Amino acid sequence: MWQQLLGQIQNGDRKALARCISFIENEQQGYQDLLVELPSNVQSKIIGITGPPGAGKSTLVDGLISELIKDQKKVAVLCVDPSSPFNLGAVLGDRIRMSQWYTHPDVFIRSLATRGSMGGLHPKIIEITDLLKAAGFDYIIVETVGVGQSEIEIAGLADTTAVVVVPEAGDEVQTMKAGLMEIADVFVVNKSDRPDADRFVKNLRLMLAPAFSSNKNEIQVIKTVANQNKGIDLLYEAIKKHQLETGFNDRKLWLLTDKVYHLIQKEKMRAVDKTELKNKVRNGINSGSFNLYKLAKGYFA
Amino acid sequence: MWQQLLGQIQNGDRKALARCISFIENEQQGYQDLLVELPSNVQSKIIGITGPPGAGKSTLVDGLISELIKDQKKVAVLCVDPSSPFNLGAVLGDRIRMSQWYTHPDVFIRSLATRGSMGGLHPKIIEITDLLKAAGFDYIIVETVGVGQSEIEIAGLADTTAVVVVPEAGDEVQTMKAGLMEIADVFVVNKSDRPDADRFVKNLRLMLAPAFSSNKNEIQVIKTVANQNKGIDLLYEAIKKHQLETGFNDRKLWLLTDKVYHLIQKEKMRAVDKTELKNKVRNGINSGSFNLYKLAKGYFA
Repeated sequence: MWQQLLGQIQNGDRKALARCISFIENEQQGYQDLLVELPSNVQSKIIGITGPPGAGKSTLVDGLISELIKDQKKVAVLCVDPSSPFNLGAVLGDRIRMSQWYTHPDVFIRSLATRGSMGGLHPKIIEITDLLKAAGFDYIIVETVGVGQSEIEIAGLADTTAVVVVPEAGDEVQTMKAGLMEIADVFVVNKSDRPDADRFVKNLRLMLAPAFSSNKNEIQVIKTVANQNKGIDLLYEAIKKHQLETGFNDRKLWLLTDKVYHLIQKEKMRAVDKTELKNKVRNGINSGSFNLYKLAKGYFA
Repeated sequence: MWQQLLGQIQNGDRKALARCISFIENEQQGYQDLLVELPSNVQSKIIGITGPPGAGKSTLVDGLISELIKDQKKVAVLCVDPSSPFNLGAVLGDRIRMSQWYTHPDVFIRSLATRGSMGGLHPKIIEITDLLKAAGFDYIIVETVGVGQSEIEIAGLADTTAVVVVPEAGDEVQTMKAGLMEIADVFVVNKSDRPDADRFVKNLRLMLAPAFSSNKNEIQVIKTVANQNKGIDLLYEAIKKHQLETGFNDRKLWLLTDKVYHLIQKEKMRAVDKTELKNKVRNGINSGSFNLYKLAKGYFA
């Protein structure tokens, strides 16, 4: 069944793909069998787009899809929404913005709720991007708000991470969240038609200069006005340039090692039920004969 | 060997006890075999003493030891020091304060460094208190600075948790750390000869009244001036009163369940080496044939 589904997905069946993502999200029986079958030598590249709320990430992604389609690429977009109910309005607005692409044969868009995963992007983000790679997309764009743990995860997941910021009047680059500074391969200064934009960009470039930062590679700073479709072509060029220049990503190595470790741990602990354990502890205490290590040892087999 | 050591400990050999705590701390070969042998139906009670730095916890513990010795009890004290180097001076001062007890046959004092355990008291705190129980102490006092995760842990570990605070001039009870509020079985207002102490105590009692809080049991508020040995007798009475009144501790159940769960997890993951895993991930990526689930599956056996 899974091999048939995988075949459909590789033949471009989008309904099969959407269904399969849901299977993985819901950990439906046998989803691991499918994941074991995924081909691994695929050339897809992941582009991470992150930054603070209101920076115009979705409009930028919308423009980036245009560029990729013009370049005859197939593109999948994963929008990782923080599941806070307060963001719902904004998120819906974003999705409507991208809606022109929903029916395009070379574009696939999917929203993922974070579902309380401990500050990360999504508990199955690696599995889902692996599936999209197998589905033959040239580029996978992962768009997310840059908060907490998700920054570290996107930097490991993406081949190129673009951090989107806006020049705020009077805002100093120094106040920018340090985490975003560290993960950027490309900086996008969006809404760069605002006053003070040039000063902001100048300060940012100064701060990213090798003398001031620990970056080995040059970090490009791109000015865009996404809602006027300005500068998106330059962003695409910058992304391609970065991908040609860089080799192995150490953050990716750690992310994947951690993931494998947790998969193994989850499997090994499958038979250990916490409620049952709690009852055994309660009974032990009540009967006055509780020994922590004796109880644990019973599960060591 | 372990049974012999356990016998020595139960016969009151303090050097054997001290050595055994170090064995457990260092996870020396076979330490688990000793822990499996510990008798479980012992009547020792754990008293948790926590609160902000500078509240006078060590002086209070010093006084409490006096009360317990007067009452012909055997007492062990664990001082859990946050391992921050900035606290070293204070910590040494505290230990010197208690030093009169170091040679007393019915008193055992031990400092434990937290060693970067993730916000908790100490990675082996449960094991060490179990050992002290087996050694025949009537009371085990665990003294710690109330920060972060350690509050939750001490509330689960201790049969009675005393939170020590001081009345600061102009300080309002409302600003007290919420976590400390929730775990207190007894509140100690130390340095209560300060001006405004009565107002502070009055506000605290008001706040702890059943109408304002979710506490089932009455939370006693005890005024002390530890360095003049005032009120310590009342604190000891309050602790004994609490221990007579309360039965099963739900927080203890969770703490122990969690502990057993992690013991099992640690054992099951013993064979999985993260460095080896990382190398396999690296080789997989480099050879262009990396599959997350295939790698994980190899460890499932």
